[in-house]
Amino acid sequence: MTSSPKPSTFTNQKWILTKRPKDEFDPDRDVELKTEELNSKSCLDGEKDEQDLVLVKVEVLSVDAFIRTMMDATAYHGSLDLQNTLPALGYGTVVMSKSKKFRVGQPVLGMLGAQTYARIPAKQLKRKFDLPLLPTSASLGLLSLTTGLTAYAGIFFVPSKGPRKGDTVVVTASAGAVGSIAAQLAKTTGAKVVGIAGNKNDYLLNELKLDGAVNYKDKSISLEDQLDEACPNGVDFVFDNVGGDTLDALLERIRPGGRIVICGAVSQYDSGSVNKVDGQTVQGPSNYLNLAERGAEMRGFNVMQHMHKMPIAMFFLFWYYVRGKVRMTEHIHNGIESFPKALKSLFDGGNTGKTLVKVKNV
Amino acid sequence: MTSSPKPSTFTNQKWILTKRPKDEFDPDRDVELKTEELNSKSCLDGEKDEQDLVLVKVEVLSVDAFIRTMMDATAYHGSLDLQNTLPALGYGTVVMSKSKKFRVGQPVLGMLGAQTYARIPAKQLKRKFDLPLLPTSASLGLLSLTTGLTAYAGIFFVPSKGPRKGDTVVVTASAGAVGSIAAQLAKTTGAKVVGIAGNKNDYLLNELKLDGAVNYKDKSISLEDQLDEACPNGVDFVFDNVGGDTLDALLERIRPGGRIVICGAVSQYDSGSVNKVDGQTVQGPSNYLNLAERGAEMRGFNVMQHMHKMPIAMFFLFWYYVRGKVRMTEHIHNGIESFPKALKSLFDGGNTGKTLVKVKNV
Repeated sequence: MTSSPKPSTFTNQKWILTKRPKDEFDPDRDVELKTEELNSKSCLDGEKDEQDLVLVKVEVLSVDAFIRTMMDATAYHGSLDLQNTLPALGYGTVVMSKSKKFRVGQPVLGMLGAQTYARIPAKQLKRKFDLPLLPTSASLGLLSLTTGLTAYAGIFFVPSKGPRKGDTVVVTASAGAVGSIAAQLAKTTGAKVVGIAGNKNDYLLNELKLDGAVNYKDKSISLEDQLDEACPNGVDFVFDNVGGDTLDALLERIRPGGRIVICGAVSQYDSGSVNKVDGQTVQGPSNYLNLAERGAEMRGFNVMQHMHKMPIAMFFLFWYYVRGKVRMTEHIHNGIESFPKALKSLFDGGNTGKTLVKVKNV
Repeated sequence: MTSSPKPSTFTNQKWILTKRPKDEFDPDRDVELKTEELNSKSCLDGEKDEQDLVLVKVEVLSVDAFIRTMMDATAYHGSLDLQNTLPALGYGTVVMSKSKKFRVGQPVLGMLGAQTYARIPAKQLKRKFDLPLLPTSASLGLLSLTTGLTAYAGIFFVPSKGPRKGDTVVVTASAGAVGSIAAQLAKTTGAKVVGIAGNKNDYLLNELKLDGAVNYKDKSISLEDQLDEACPNGVDFVFDNVGGDTLDALLERIRPGGRIVICGAVSQYDSGSVNKVDGQTVQGPSNYLNLAERGAEMRGFNVMQHMHKMPIAMFFLFWYYVRGKVRMTEHIHNGIESFPKALKSLFDGGNTGKTLVKVKNV
């Protein structure tokens, strides 16, 4: 934690958006890795918030689906301007500071961006703290807003009635960061939990210990037939991050009094469809009338709507982790160069668990 | 109520389904008025339930959207076989009875069908009772399951939080039987209520005393622009019976914590789309991701899921009616011949309030 002698420049490598993706995000076409030299004497000067600016050496970045949606001109989570650095949550160490809040050497957490050095106002940063028994990356995974806390809110805070013993629960994108935690949290209630993912049955059944696995990439048997086999009596609870045909297949099988929690729609993010100004090209769930026929609910959420309950969520996630009920698989990519490919892996089913980029600074 | 001397035959005129509608229901092509003579000596014999059969002279029939959906091969509310009589709720007087439950001359209520005489097991009938201060047709409108009780359940029982003072409520199909009651019930809470209908602004504003009216048939201004004008701060509560683009426009404007109650989707019933076996051609709400962005809920219902609370609903509907808070407009068609045209009027916006057919027997 002691600071080394300050170099005269810091070499920042950052991924900037050069082109709005047309349909699928193309790492080779839409983004560019730019190098800039930050003068250690002046790089925190002359800004509006200069009183408060710090320079953070980035260590680990969280790779999340919202980054893809922000590349679109009108986007679900807000839009990123061209030539700007891709947003990303991450942690690192303060190497220069004009702020009273942080001194050099302190570990911090915040929206550092997909880069190796972040110039950022102190008020946008939090002190990174590590809990005993948890890996240091837990702040980006198990206990982060975009991952573990989102999963906890979706399973327990959002629905009018959470999963319970006797229920059949289906979690889509269940090999992903949020889905894998959501599925394990649903298991703690005694419900039967079935995960949907692409070629991840082994992980779902043997690592996450789910009761059933559906492989949407299986060419030999349809998603519908797999669901009928895994959930012969229908589905009581759905945690959905996928949308599209998968959501329709689940609505088809929703049981009376069923609850569907909408966290996102990863099948729609990378199709260029959520960015249409009129929003009309997202595939809406045709089977939504089953909500009426079966007296079911569909509730959406964003974790920010449940901030007041986050201490509860953090406590239980910690507790389930310590008791071995919830594990967090990490999929680590090495080097800032790997960031766009890591992001792409969220949409082609290449990732398992939490996707992180370990930044190696020059 | 005294029974006249029994004739030797009863002439029954009944509307049967001869052809499943292709897209829109065509009264001239899809149904046929058939005449049959029922022998008063034998017409209640030889049936499985003959101990229990009664013959009812039909007086008034309720015209409901579910009748259209049942014409499809695989339908939301169940399917009607070809050559069978169109279903319809109605009331009439018992003219013959093999049942101990009902004697000749008693008024009864039930699924009598679109016909002038109904042979029906007594267990499928209820004694029709009239409440003081209410019109006799209230049993098919204000206090019927398919109308007033459906509206009450949708406004008060289904959402996690009903409309309240300060909320902006939008009711679609608000000049229809269910919508007009739902809108008036929402008004009793102190909420601002805006109705959507086709060329019915005068009725919505001056008869139902709503706070705003949107005319979806207005060619000079779009539905969206009308909604923006009527609901400048967005929408907190939606009672939807329409679906399609209208539901998407409302999802676009749903506010944080909003509630959307799905009662039906009249825009989809008569398009031949809900009857597709795979259900994929119903227009699903593309803007459903706003549920996540704004932490909103969409709940569906069918009144049968709330039967245990119906005494409460009946009490309050009666009470609001007596106090003049809720009125029931009736649109009466005369003669059994008018039944298919009356049904068609539900889908082309020709009806106002409760659509009834007064049967005149030969």
